[in-house]
Amino acid sequence: MKRAISLCLGVAASLLAAVAPARAEDGYRLWLRYPAASASSTIEVEKSTPIIDTAAAELRRGLGRRVARVLLATTADPRVAALRLAQPLGDEGYAIRSTQVAGQPTVVVAAEGERGLLYGAFALLRHLDTGGAATAIDLHSAPRIKLRVIDHWDNLDGFVERGYAGRSLWDWWTLPEHIDPLYLDYARANASLGINGIVLNNVNAKADSLTAAYIAKAAALAEVLRPYGIKVYLSARFSAPHDLGGLATGDPLDPAVRAWWAAKADEIYRAIPDFGGFLVKANSEGQPGPGDYGRTHADGANMLAAAVAPHGGVVMWRAFVYSEVNPEDRAKQAYSEFQPLDGKFADNVLVQVKNGAIDFQPREPFHPLFGAMPRTPLMLELQITKEYLGQGTSLAYLGPLFEEVLNANTYRGEGSGPTVAQVIDGSAEGHELTGIAGVANVGRSRDWSGSTFNQANWYAFGRLAWDPGLSAEAIAREWAAQTFSPDPRVVDPVVRIMMGSREAVVDYTGPLGLAHQMATGHHYGPGPWIADLARPEWNPAYYNRADAGGIGFDRTKAGSDAIGQYAPELARLLADPRTTPESELLWFHHLAWDFRMASGRTLWEELVAHYDAGVASVVDMRRAWDALRPQIDAERWQKTADFLAIEERDARWWRDASLAYWMSVNGLPLPAGAAPPAHDLAWYKAQSYPYAPGNP
Amino acid sequence: MKRAISLCLGVAASLLAAVAPARAEDGYRLWLRYPAASASSTIEVEKSTPIIDTAAAELRRGLGRRVARVLLATTADPRVAALRLAQPLGDEGYAIRSTQVAGQPTVVVAAEGERGLLYGAFALLRHLDTGGAATAIDLHSAPRIKLRVIDHWDNLDGFVERGYAGRSLWDWWTLPEHIDPLYLDYARANASLGINGIVLNNVNAKADSLTAAYIAKAAALAEVLRPYGIKVYLSARFSAPHDLGGLATGDPLDPAVRAWWAAKADEIYRAIPDFGGFLVKANSEGQPGPGDYGRTHADGANMLAAAVAPHGGVVMWRAFVYSEVNPEDRAKQAYSEFQPLDGKFADNVLVQVKNGAIDFQPREPFHPLFGAMPRTPLMLELQITKEYLGQGTSLAYLGPLFEEVLNANTYRGEGSGPTVAQVIDGSAEGHELTGIAGVANVGRSRDWSGSTFNQANWYAFGRLAWDPGLSAEAIAREWAAQTFSPDPRVVDPVVRIMMGSREAVVDYTGPLGLAHQMATGHHYGPGPWIADLARPEWNPAYYNRADAGGIGFDRTKAGSDAIGQYAPELARLLADPRTTPESELLWFHHLAWDFRMASGRTLWEELVAHYDAGVASVVDMRRAWDALRPQIDAERWQKTADFLAIEERDARWWRDASLAYWMSVNGLPLPAGAAPPAHDLAWYKAQSYPYAPGNP
Repeated sequence: MKRAISLCLGVAASLLAAVAPARAEDGYRLWLRYPAASASSTIEVEKSTPIIDTAAAELRRGLGRRVARVLLATTADPRVAALRLAQPLGDEGYAIRSTQVAGQPTVVVAAEGERGLLYGAFALLRHLDTGGAATAIDLHSAPRIKLRVIDHWDNLDGFVERGYAGRSLWDWWTLPEHIDPLYLDYARANASLGINGIVLNNVNAKADSLTAAYIAKAAALAEVLRPYGIKVYLSARFSAPHDLGGLATGDPLDPAVRAWWAAKADEIYRAIPDFGGFLVKANSEGQPGPGDYGRTHADGANMLAAAVAPHGGVVMWRAFVYSEVNPEDRAKQAYSEFQPLDGKFADNVLVQVKNGAIDFQPREPFHPLFGAMPRTPLMLELQITKEYLGQGTSLAYLGPLFEEVLNANTYRGEGSGPTVAQVIDGSAEGHELTGIAGVANVGRSRDWSGSTFNQANWYAFGRLAWDPGLSAEAIAREWAAQTFSPDPRVVDPVVRIMMGSREAVVDYTGPLGLAHQMATGHHYGPGPWIADLARPEWNPAYYNRADAGGIGFDRTKAGSDAIGQYAPELARLLADPRTTPESELLWFHHLAWDFRMASGRTLWEELVAHYDAGVASVVDMRRAWDALRPQIDAERWQKTADFLAIEERDARWWRDASLAYWMSVNGLPLPAGAAPPAHDLAWYKAQSYPYAPGNP
Repeated sequence: MKRAISLCLGVAASLLAAVAPARAEDGYRLWLRYPAASASSTIEVEKSTPIIDTAAAELRRGLGRRVARVLLATTADPRVAALRLAQPLGDEGYAIRSTQVAGQPTVVVAAEGERGLLYGAFALLRHLDTGGAATAIDLHSAPRIKLRVIDHWDNLDGFVERGYAGRSLWDWWTLPEHIDPLYLDYARANASLGINGIVLNNVNAKADSLTAAYIAKAAALAEVLRPYGIKVYLSARFSAPHDLGGLATGDPLDPAVRAWWAAKADEIYRAIPDFGGFLVKANSEGQPGPGDYGRTHADGANMLAAAVAPHGGVVMWRAFVYSEVNPEDRAKQAYSEFQPLDGKFADNVLVQVKNGAIDFQPREPFHPLFGAMPRTPLMLELQITKEYLGQGTSLAYLGPLFEEVLNANTYRGEGSGPTVAQVIDGSAEGHELTGIAGVANVGRSRDWSGSTFNQANWYAFGRLAWDPGLSAEAIAREWAAQTFSPDPRVVDPVVRIMMGSREAVVDYTGPLGLAHQMATGHHYGPGPWIADLARPEWNPAYYNRADAGGIGFDRTKAGSDAIGQYAPELARLLADPRTTPESELLWFHHLAWDFRMASGRTLWEELVAHYDAGVASVVDMRRAWDALRPQIDAERWQKTADFLAIEERDARWWRDASLAYWMSVNGLPLPAGAAPPAHDLAWYKAQSYPYAPGNP
């Protein structure tokens, strides 16, 4: 028999070789790379519903024989009731427990609602895929945030604004007739993270998305997503009653306009009974809005809210506004416009606030609106796509960025806190309706996000949306184990690379609180010298304010007083550069080049040291990735290696171009040991990239 | 041992199930779907070179154990010399023969040059994959056309003009650092057909493609393609000396301009020693050209030809020209401008002529230039992407269209012939330099071409480029066998569907010689009523000339006399509607609605019958495809089924919209039994598709 078995292994191995596709490790499977298995556990379900069937199918796909038997059942099932689960699980939470059912060893996945069973099934797979034991399982979790939403900035023509992973997943042209299997795998991936909402189209919206033809297309997608617990939402163009309906106005207080939106909502809900609602970018960067008619954001949001309220829908109204005619510090404008509206929004409105007051920079202080609108549910908007962090190619794990904003102390409570996480999960202010949104980084790139490590940002967003208390490092460990291997010889160095990667980008693009220093339009590469754009607040020079005397934006009382928008205790700390975190120093202060830092170095020396540290980090990442070559499949290894080479080139470019410009302004020599820029400033200014991706 | 073996099979089968990817049949493998095999034949090579290694690797990938031993060797090898091959094979031809080598049964793949070995390796695989016997193999073939080129209308930003299969394959942004494995598989697919040239960028060219940065990117692609026998070419913007070089002029007779191009060619050849040359669209649809400086197309082409001649390069100069200020029938303008230049082009210039005189319509008479420029190598340009034949979704096999033009009799010889094929393969006029180009239909769609059946058009182009004497039906059989299964129960109905599919599009969009009846810009769907575009020859009404009295474009002496551009004998036949093929009738004649057709029906009745036949064909195709469901894998079956549903909808739309318009013009009732259009003409005129793909 021994010989026969070895023959078998030979046959099996060669079959594997023969049938394995040439590009098996192309990244398509994301973190759902279940081990090959020849059979599945017994999967028992309390009942068959579309969502429970989805959960069972995923277990059949991924579980193998790692546990003998699984029961998926709600707390209505006596076999679950017998477990006497103590935790309240809510609509979406789950408990997973190894136990005996009818005398047989069984892993029970239990929930109050069927979506909890879906999330529990994925949680069981994650537990096992990350090396968790197959015995004595006792897990439970429930999401802290109600609406966990991915925002697609996808245009109807397939272009993705700020997308670096190919065309839109949505092939609007062949919908509703053709359902691309990609949609199903996208739904699976999101469900595995607990994402329960997807905004299909760009916030820079076309009214066409609200026509009957496009509603039918959206309805077809809703059908695909529904068994995965995901609702669809649409970005609504505020002027649609005029653009589509032929009305003379879009005034939210006009009865005809209100009637148009109510009828439109009715039409959408006839096609999509569980439609989530509208996301709106209004009176921002050229988009129409209630301000065009002399009305407030609350007037606009509440009008739409009234249209969807009878159907249980919500309105997510963005606070990302700044005006070309308003000379006020751009960082202050959203607060100035929205904070006075606190308490004026309808119950089914969430105001969606970006993590910082400018625009998804590598580092920003948390947005002053968090904690400042206690009577309004604030939804946190994060950017998963790396518009300002190296776009498609840089390796920048955003977990630490997300964690930083979620853990930021608003100083709005009595004593410590609440954190931003406690504001958005509703616990600080007692909101039932809560939400978090991430701007997607997916497209038709075979690996979904354009690179393996970009997948981690989608993963981290999803996990933090479910539980904002998770640590970025723990999430990185989970992701690395599922994406590459649970072997610590892989996980440890991968996580080390990831955890330092975002700070590297901060260091080589905008250290010590500098921000918005990128080139115009496409936002790729450095442009700190740019000062000639039509709108002042579009210029990097507006933000760095570098001159012979110093650098940084004075947001103290002597300057724009943006600090005054924060809670008094925090404002007091930020008013003094000595009690301002050095990582945010030049965001809040204009300081002399010879300002003395905590390290004892001058500001100028410290700046140079940060740029150099950023470049050195990338060099280290490359070295660490090279060492991982034996452990990683060839295709994914090579792509990341190539991209790290691009990032090193870009890091040196950022560092050199920035230093060349600062030196042209401050006239200072480089600190001893610092390498001079590779080219002169004119060379950096002459660089032009007309075909950079993602630029609308 | 028996039990052990059955156990083995069990293990193997379950491993297969486990490792088979969820989307195994997503179309990525094209026609190269080699059977799974546990081991490979012995592959012996005369010597190792990049191209021979590529050939051997492909055999290892695909051959399995279908033959015991293969020898790849040139005629310089004594083992090949011993075979006494009779045929001249040329640089690229091959012979394949089952024989004994050193006493062992061996399939010898022999060639004079190593590219012949590459094509022979693919030919052996094709032979076996289409059901050819593994014994007594005796094949030989050599290409009839020297330059077999795919033209990419791919922009540097990733958009593909008239592309319906996603973004460009070329990720210019990450080149040259990152080589996407997609490039390798694309090279393999083209090499399998004998394609030996690829024009990387759109004929509507940006000068940036000639900058140092983009030359480096093109060089990286050339490195990938070289071992597959494929040269790269670039579309050149004629004004580049001005755009990039800062010269005041692009005048081809200006010494500074000539020097700029010579230096640019030198620069390109330093990076790409086997660079193929330039493709140029000049003085056409807004592109700059020698006419801007009062020079001829020959002046322009010869200037570029002089720049690449020292390096062995060629210039492919397009004859697709028509002017907004020239009132002459658009169909005549290319001939009028180019025919007088015959004999004036340098030896390394090919004039690239579209198959017909307008623009890739579902049916056009062959271009009158073929046979009319005997001293100039004419390169045939075909469109593989289906700009005018239903774009991404319709099932329209273009083999019959390509075959029709290749077999067209130019009447330019003594007695019969030569055919267009004999003009472009050089045999009619004694040219050594010969070429054929197809405009690509590939992109980042997972199945490369947007649908399985679109792959067949790429395949058919490649096979006909190698041997323009192949029949469209034989090619369809080959393709179907490799793409689905060699089982005749699959091949027969698939080929039946394919062979009728192009005529269906002709029938439901523009029967009896009607052409250019599509909507504006995106060219999707009907617009026969359109008459208000700025340039007359952009209007469908310019082509149909429908009025109360009749329909069709009078190209006789009484009209535009375009017929006079054909050879006298052919012109005589075309001058009379009775001796004009009915399929081209309204291309050449304006006829009364009650003109009596060969069938005895009036022209109006015949037109309606053709539209109805087109719709009926699509209905039949759907029925035939439905019946194939058990034989085809689920994913590919479903996508084609969905797309056929779209095509049926579109066919009815074309038929109904066209009839509604003709009736508004001729006031005639529908023939008995013909269904009235589903909507009134105003409805069809109101249809708008602002996000149709591929529209530049």
